[in-house]
Amino acid sequence: MQAELIFTGTELLRGEILNTHAQYLGRRLAAMGIDAALHTTVGDYWDRLADSLARAVSRSDLVIVTGGLGSTTDDLTKETAAGVLGLPMVQDQTTLSWLKDLYRSRSLRLPEVMDKQSFFPLGSRILPNPRGSAPGVLIEKDRRYIFLLPGPPGELKAIFEESVEPFLAALDIRGMLVRSKIIKVTGIAEAMVQQNLADLGGQGNPGLAYLAKPGEVHVRVTARSESPQAAEDMVSELAGRVKERLAGFIFGEDEEIIEETVGALLLDKGLSVSTAESCTGGLIAKRLTSIPGSSGYFLGSVVAYDNMVKERLLGVPRKTLEQHGAVSRETAVAMAQGVRDLTGSSLAVGVTGIAGPGGGTQDKPVGLVFIALAVDCGTACHQFRFPGNRTSVRWGASNAALNLIKLHLGG
Amino acid sequence: MQAELIFTGTELLRGEILNTHAQYLGRRLAAMGIDAALHTTVGDYWDRLADSLARAVSRSDLVIVTGGLGSTTDDLTKETAAGVLGLPMVQDQTTLSWLKDLYRSRSLRLPEVMDKQSFFPLGSRILPNPRGSAPGVLIEKDRRYIFLLPGPPGELKAIFEESVEPFLAALDIRGMLVRSKIIKVTGIAEAMVQQNLADLGGQGNPGLAYLAKPGEVHVRVTARSESPQAAEDMVSELAGRVKERLAGFIFGEDEEIIEETVGALLLDKGLSVSTAESCTGGLIAKRLTSIPGSSGYFLGSVVAYDNMVKERLLGVPRKTLEQHGAVSRETAVAMAQGVRDLTGSSLAVGVTGIAGPGGGTQDKPVGLVFIALAVDCGTACHQFRFPGNRTSVRWGASNAALNLIKLHLGG
Repeated sequence: MQAELIFTGTELLRGEILNTHAQYLGRRLAAMGIDAALHTTVGDYWDRLADSLARAVSRSDLVIVTGGLGSTTDDLTKETAAGVLGLPMVQDQTTLSWLKDLYRSRSLRLPEVMDKQSFFPLGSRILPNPRGSAPGVLIEKDRRYIFLLPGPPGELKAIFEESVEPFLAALDIRGMLVRSKIIKVTGIAEAMVQQNLADLGGQGNPGLAYLAKPGEVHVRVTARSESPQAAEDMVSELAGRVKERLAGFIFGEDEEIIEETVGALLLDKGLSVSTAESCTGGLIAKRLTSIPGSSGYFLGSVVAYDNMVKERLLGVPRKTLEQHGAVSRETAVAMAQGVRDLTGSSLAVGVTGIAGPGGGTQDKPVGLVFIALAVDCGTACHQFRFPGNRTSVRWGASNAALNLIKLHLGG
Repeated sequence: MQAELIFTGTELLRGEILNTHAQYLGRRLAAMGIDAALHTTVGDYWDRLADSLARAVSRSDLVIVTGGLGSTTDDLTKETAAGVLGLPMVQDQTTLSWLKDLYRSRSLRLPEVMDKQSFFPLGSRILPNPRGSAPGVLIEKDRRYIFLLPGPPGELKAIFEESVEPFLAALDIRGMLVRSKIIKVTGIAEAMVQQNLADLGGQGNPGLAYLAKPGEVHVRVTARSESPQAAEDMVSELAGRVKERLAGFIFGEDEEIIEETVGALLLDKGLSVSTAESCTGGLIAKRLTSIPGSSGYFLGSVVAYDNMVKERLLGVPRKTLEQHGAVSRETAVAMAQGVRDLTGSSLAVGVTGIAGPGGGTQDKPVGLVFIALAVDCGTACHQFRFPGNRTSVRWGASNAALNLIKLHLGG
């Protein structure tokens, strides 16, 4: 099965946004044994999209077009596909009702311009969009499959995973299957990770690849085989050895969202959490509260950036601040205990460190972070040294803090 | 001048790496008034690259190909370009000597396989690579320019900035220069923005384009002209009308980072800020503290997710919570005043709302957010209705809160 991907959006051509769809779709398709032979990015103009689409349809079994399904005048994908395939545009009453309900649920009337969202090329299968108002589209013609997916990444992923993948999985596709596992580590630089794993493999089969992101490094173990079981076994054997080598730095695997794991564990055990944050500046609270339903276990947070706030709100003794400094094991412990006392939460974390770029010294360099976890039976404090810039140090510290909670809860 | 970019690499098609070249080159070219009309990604196969390159050369003035300049057998870019353009490959003695020196400086002999690096299509201009062993290539044919650049990002950027940009800048590009301005709004859905501006223009010149991101919508005003002044005037005239229509929703322009603007204003005026956050869960504090040096004006924050925290830490009267609810004008005001009293900051914001997906009612639907700004002379509260999901509501609320501070400070 040969696939082609077409991305639409002048903002992609001008570099105003990064094309993350190319990676996401390329990887998901490869995992199913489908190789994309060509990626094309075109602007929001009818002629170029029409030309690319016509060529893609003429030579490939599967074509995925992203973007241009919105309600604005530069959203032209459905109309262009209809033109290229010689199909009229027709209104779908089910989608129209759904759109009206969507707006009604927000106490709004459907704007006239949104009417466009309910028109599709004749014979389209309409793929529900659980995240937005532009449904995906599947057009089947002469045993070729053309998918039109919306541009916003959350919407694209939701439709791809809920509708496109199951559809493709049901087709009889034969090819080299790719299996992979991602192991995520924090508190260690990419070069150190690579050095640690150098003898385990590189680009072979199975192979290792590295991706450094701010505050974390992802190690991807990949294997290819015509047999899914053989590919999975290769991945699992090598992943096991990687995990042994990196023990102590690992905070997650694959698509796991650590704040979600922590939330589920807290809910499950009927426990609550609060945070006292200095260098992370509210990032841990923000991540915990990004999960719907987090009010069931997250009580609150004190972002104590200024020392006076550490003292006055969290009750960190002035003597501790003077003797040991704001960035110290003692301050982290007092912060965690302080916020736990204030909120009455079962668990509390206290985080203080030097995010940089300024403020580092010989003794306390940029990247030094103390994270304390206060629980019923006492408070433990861990010292970290995060590599990278301000963003990396802060994100790394938030990963490590969430991971301490996760490990404490047995996750 | 019409440009096309061709990216080579099977790893890009499979999503093993993210295509950052597309953004980098798109942005650098757009800044010079050169729009890329098409991006194509092909695998490491001769035929597909040859086909894409032949098509690109037949219709575009400028073609940039990335990747495939290395010494391994799947590096085919120079050979393919030579084939497509009907040029023989010839060895360049200067490059051969340079390569030998490069290896000698590392006390190594030039591997045989590296010999390949000194062959180029006849008539190529060779562009020095200060970061690696694969020089860039410029082939000029019938007033069309074909650049071949190496794939590693550091090498590509170095050659682009040291050789390609100066070359293009010296050309008499009589193409249409592009000028644009982005106006960022929050608290209003993309469809409503579009409806508001529908009569001002679509894809014309000047034109309007829309980009919806979680919690914000970007309106891009673009104009093209051979005269930079004329293009700028068109942008500025249309942008003025857009701003009139969207007044009250605008929170920034172009590359502005609002937390940076707010920080600079606070520093300039010698003022400090603190936040009391419910539905944003620390996001505003996190954004403010993401700016280096924010300890100069940011004192701290109370994330009062639980009502008990609102009451106990921020001193929101129980009566207020009972009578008006946690999501109310009164609670937002009490939160802002509470955190201002606690920290002694000059300004304080209080944010409470319903981020969703749960918790909405007829009276208080998902997306309803109250944001209060407490200052010396009193506290003002604004009511917002953010469209979209939890992420959008939270991000939108943080944009609006930062914007209220910015506007108060005269930014």
